[in-house]
Amino acid sequence: MITLYHCSSARSFRPLWTLEEMGLPCDLKMLPFPPRALAKEYLGINPLGTIPFMIDGDTRMSESAAICQYLVERHGPSPLAVAKDEPAYGAWLNFLHFGEATLTVPQTIVLRYTHLEPPERRLPQAVEDYRIVFHGRLKKLEPLLAREEFLCAGRFTAADIVVGYAMLLAERLSLDDGFTPAVRAYWERLQRRDGFQRAMAHQERAAREQGVAPTPHRRS
Amino acid sequence: MITLYHCSSARSFRPLWTLEEMGLPCDLKMLPFPPRALAKEYLGINPLGTIPFMIDGDTRMSESAAICQYLVERHGPSPLAVAKDEPAYGAWLNFLHFGEATLTVPQTIVLRYTHLEPPERRLPQAVEDYRIVFHGRLKKLEPLLAREEFLCAGRFTAADIVVGYAMLLAERLSLDDGFTPAVRAYWERLQRRDGFQRAMAHQERAAREQGVAPTPHRRS
Repeated sequence: MITLYHCSSARSFRPLWTLEEMGLPCDLKMLPFPPRALAKEYLGINPLGTIPFMIDGDTRMSESAAICQYLVERHGPSPLAVAKDEPAYGAWLNFLHFGEATLTVPQTIVLRYTHLEPPERRLPQAVEDYRIVFHGRLKKLEPLLAREEFLCAGRFTAADIVVGYAMLLAERLSLDDGFTPAVRAYWERLQRRDGFQRAMAHQERAAREQGVAPTPHRRS
Repeated sequence: MITLYHCSSARSFRPLWTLEEMGLPCDLKMLPFPPRALAKEYLGINPLGTIPFMIDGDTRMSESAAICQYLVERHGPSPLAVAKDEPAYGAWLNFLHFGEATLTVPQTIVLRYTHLEPPERRLPQAVEDYRIVFHGRLKKLEPLLAREEFLCAGRFTAADIVVGYAMLLAERLSLDDGFTPAVRAYWERLQRRDGFQRAMAHQERAAREQGVAPTPHRRS
């Protein structure tokens, strides 16, 4: 059984969504956000204090996009993986990294300086700088998503989960005003998937059962 | 022939190092840093304006860690790849992402607010905040590197290239004061590799031949 440490709608939503798309069970352990402050015992499990953390036998992983690739490769075969002899293999790997390093990390700077730091340490300039970075990069997907239903390989893959999560976080940070039309339509398409809805229902059920409050940076 | 767009010692050093480790030739196109300001025609090739950009037949990629994985998988077999049935497969994928999203992106915030922004837009608090983030995360490698010569699988892999580059950037940003002993010894080991030294020589030769000045954020 795979164990996944998770905060509601944090980056660990990516592996949770992947598990639900694949129909794989997991032991979902809910934590309050941010766990490094609100669940210090978690540092004994993941010394980085970051979310997610996944345990599968002897395998331990903390990078959400890497876990998605791991799950579809190791627990496949799955159409969510793109094989190395498919023409889209390079594009697939690229989107797995782009979705996290290039689209999501700038948002975490916004999150830090709008929500996580105390008022006297907030940095409006950094928030604005990285809002612009995020929107500028997201906009680059517009021509592709105006032509294609999914990012690569002509089908829904783990890349759509990794990039799609960046849009979920953007909504929570009220950064979705920068969604261009095809990007917005793509994000609506992703949310209609059964796998997405099962992942949402799973985290809500687990939070309720485990008595963990929802992530505080919900959009107001 | 693989084409790689590169700035001296920028993140594109990862794919260059990988190519040299594998003995693969490439057409190395040198650009001044940052190309979005100093080589605006590059936006016609990579609309993001980021470095690297790699072209291999119909494949186009912009994420440095993804390109490393692509090269060792598509142009292998190579011991730099970890196969999905090896016990270290999950750790390998994790380090490929950790090296970029978790170790390198915090440094790019330091780079931005110490070197790239004009003096009136520099943010000493953000520089200090992300210096602490980078050092805190790097330090987590200390126990592993005190035991092991390389990050995973008992051998040098693409993960060492991706994580090792974070140390090269740290030196250039004078963030190497946070290197703990085993981390420092590991970085010295990596730099003694023939592949690393060939990549360094390759970029110096190409910069000279193409008349491109070295990256301006050299350590002073």
